Amino acid sequence: MTRTNAELLADRARLMGPNVSTFYEDPLHIVKGEGVWLWDADGRKYLDCYNNVPHVGHCNPRVVDAICEQARTLNTHTRYLHEGILAYIERLTGTMDASLDTAILTCTGSEANDIALRMAEAVTGKRGIIATDATYHGNTSLVSQLSKSNIPTVGFGLGQYFRFVDAPDSYRNPDPDGTIFAAQVADQIEALNEDDTGFAALVVCPYFLNEGFPDHPNGWLKPTAEVVRKAGGVLICDEVQSGFGRTGTHMWAHEKMGVVPDVMVLGKPMGNGHPIGGVVSRGEIVAEFRKGYRYFNTFGGNPVSCAAAMAVLEEIEDKDLVSNALAVGKHARMRMNQLAKKHEVIGDVRGSGLIFGAEMVTDRTTKTPASEFTDRVINAMRHRGIVLSKLGRYKNALKIRPPMPFSIQNADLLFDTLDEVVSETPVHL
Amino acid sequence: MTRTNAELLADRARLMGPNVSTFYEDPLHIVKGEGVWLWDADGRKYLDCYNNVPHVGHCNPRVVDAICEQARTLNTHTRYLHEGILAYIERLTGTMDASLDTAILTCTGSEANDIALRMAEAVTGKRGIIATDATYHGNTSLVSQLSKSNIPTVGFGLGQYFRFVDAPDSYRNPDPDGTIFAAQVADQIEALNEDDTGFAALVVCPYFLNEGFPDHPNGWLKPTAEVVRKAGGVLICDEVQSGFGRTGTHMWAHEKMGVVPDVMVLGKPMGNGHPIGGVVSRGEIVAEFRKGYRYFNTFGGNPVSCAAAMAVLEEIEDKDLVSNALAVGKHARMRMNQLAKKHEVIGDVRGSGLIFGAEMVTDRTTKTPASEFTDRVINAMRHRGIVLSKLGRYKNALKIRPPMPFSIQNADLLFDTLDEVVSETPVHL
Repeated sequence: MTRTNAELLADRARLMGPNVSTFYEDPLHIVKGEGVWLWDADGRKYLDCYNNVPHVGHCNPRVVDAICEQARTLNTHTRYLHEGILAYIERLTGTMDASLDTAILTCTGSEANDIALRMAEAVTGKRGIIATDATYHGNTSLVSQLSKSNIPTVGFGLGQYFRFVDAPDSYRNPDPDGTIFAAQVADQIEALNEDDTGFAALVVCPYFLNEGFPDHPNGWLKPTAEVVRKAGGVLICDEVQSGFGRTGTHMWAHEKMGVVPDVMVLGKPMGNGHPIGGVVSRGEIVAEFRKGYRYFNTFGGNPVSCAAAMAVLEEIEDKDLVSNALAVGKHARMRMNQLAKKHEVIGDVRGSGLIFGAEMVTDRTTKTPASEFTDRVINAMRHRGIVLSKLGRYKNALKIRPPMPFSIQNADLLFDTLDEVVSETPVHL
Repeated sequence: MTRTNAELLADRARLMGPNVSTFYEDPLHIVKGEGVWLWDADGRKYLDCYNNVPHVGHCNPRVVDAICEQARTLNTHTRYLHEGILAYIERLTGTMDASLDTAILTCTGSEANDIALRMAEAVTGKRGIIATDATYHGNTSLVSQLSKSNIPTVGFGLGQYFRFVDAPDSYRNPDPDGTIFAAQVADQIEALNEDDTGFAALVVCPYFLNEGFPDHPNGWLKPTAEVVRKAGGVLICDEVQSGFGRTGTHMWAHEKMGVVPDVMVLGKPMGNGHPIGGVVSRGEIVAEFRKGYRYFNTFGGNPVSCAAAMAVLEEIEDKDLVSNALAVGKHARMRMNQLAKKHEVIGDVRGSGLIFGAEMVTDRTTKTPASEFTDRVINAMRHRGIVLSKLGRYKNALKIRPPMPFSIQNADLLFDTLDEVVSETPVHL
């Protein structure tokens, strides 16, 4: 007996409380996933152009088999010795700069960011944290303070330690060499140093995904990293969304942006949906955090989590998914550029690899955001069987971030449909 | 190619950093689990009298099958509708007082406690938190402040909001009706009210497992709950260890202690090792926390987690594991009492259901803790193929907390071996 959507929504309100977000006003009731496809309870099939958690594809057989085999054999914690966690950390850090050689595994990116901020406090002795004003890094008391757009009404006064800089915006406020952003960070460092807080860390997604993935040239973060280091602070790169080859050009987006972080945070795609996150850093930073503090995470780095995460790395390598992201991303950008030539409403085309999109504007000169139009396009796409989303300060940028096995054919279906939908959707109602 | 223990330890230090705890100085390298049994890399079999995370048994087939079936079908997040999370919350809250009707699902007990403390702040407008001085509730910046025994050296100044009361100790400082404990809590509330902090919540494990599960009569927490409510505070019961029928007499230990919490926290055994935790509370408290704050947890309550957790509840019910805990726990306590008659070193026998143990003393009159002896016993038991641990302020209490399918025969093997080991182990070296 399947409940109707109305019944499901009523039950959610009753059992889960208010303000539990859904996608779409009339949300999808998804019951099955495979590769880049999702099915709803009525058997309708959707091309998934949005979900990055199933990084190597929904229900990827290699990952599922790894989970099942390990879950049938042993699932315990790190207070016993186990090869799985060591093999995984070795392989994971093997994809990174040699300085990033030590890891703490958690269950979520939130837990990982919570550790990262404490690492910064440990090595600097300061508490001031800087982030952009349009980002998200998780949901603990400490970490939720990083989301200026939705700071919780409670949080034990932690807000005092956080300062924000303008989210970079290559379309409206170009900063081609990253020096404007670096100067803003320098200003906030100065402000933190002027009060008693002091500067501990800058936290950024190196590809600024939540900010709308502005079009930055490679190496763009270099001036910012210099400012952070000169001030004695810690550079935290949150690669939860941008990592594991998403941008196509690099395994990690910080490489693309020309920097090596002091602390790197991982989450969502790490276990293809299995709850695993982690912090990777230099040995001496991890040691400083753990000095006298025996941080332990019951499920963190357990054998099943590590098996899932290892299968993700293997799948990325065996299927050459980073190259696939690059090739399909190039094709997608070419097709989006073609659409932009045809449709005035597409004001700016952006992205790299399998994170791409376009900003919708009612007027290319004034760059007035076409936010409602974007919403209608997303809803129309859903009714044509394609799942995607929007983001950015004005919620007028299409956010297309599919599982990594997304193919040229998938991209063609997406763009053929998008072309029709944009053609049929009035810019003004 | 299996690494030796020395190689594994060296790799852990290199890849995971310092202060990563293990059980035993020469830790076990566990490779397989089944029911109440564990196997090490040399094929040696151990009776697991310690691990509570595999609540319904290591690699429980019902749980593993549920995980595999759901992982093969769909694993996504709560922004789509799904029956699994609703069915689970309905069944879970169905085992509780009717007032506990709404849940937020997380990946860990730490995340759940982090929410619980913010719920208390939300409904009281205060930040003062009280806990015992020998407990543990998790590892986020906020929640790790609750562990007086190992407060991290960093934590964004959050320590200012935490006050501690003496852990109850029925052996050395009897408090048979709980009024001494309640008075201590009242004193700390007064202290919090005297400065600017104010009183938000008392957080306790209702069976005080980390404190050494003192022998309290049913209803013992009533005077404390009265003090908390009179002061306008929130009673948070962390049932991570004590819940899901562990004590044998009740599904939840707060029932045994005669109170209904305002907020209840769940973790470790909830998914039999699959990372899932949760907060259960009254609808209005959840609503107050979520007022304007769209808390979202990417993996929290995902279809696979809910399938695992549902299978745990089904297994508890179908195998009547709460009754098993009661019966085996009674037998275990009887056998421990017999041992106490024979061995002077066993100073106090405690526990209920499948959490039981005994405090070791060098002298029953002075109650001098036999901490080193306890350590030697635990190591000797390990070499006889039985895994257990110690706890309490003096680390002289045996902590026996096996998976719930633990049988009378398992208990007999445990006690026959313990009898021999205690006989052979000198109290003084």
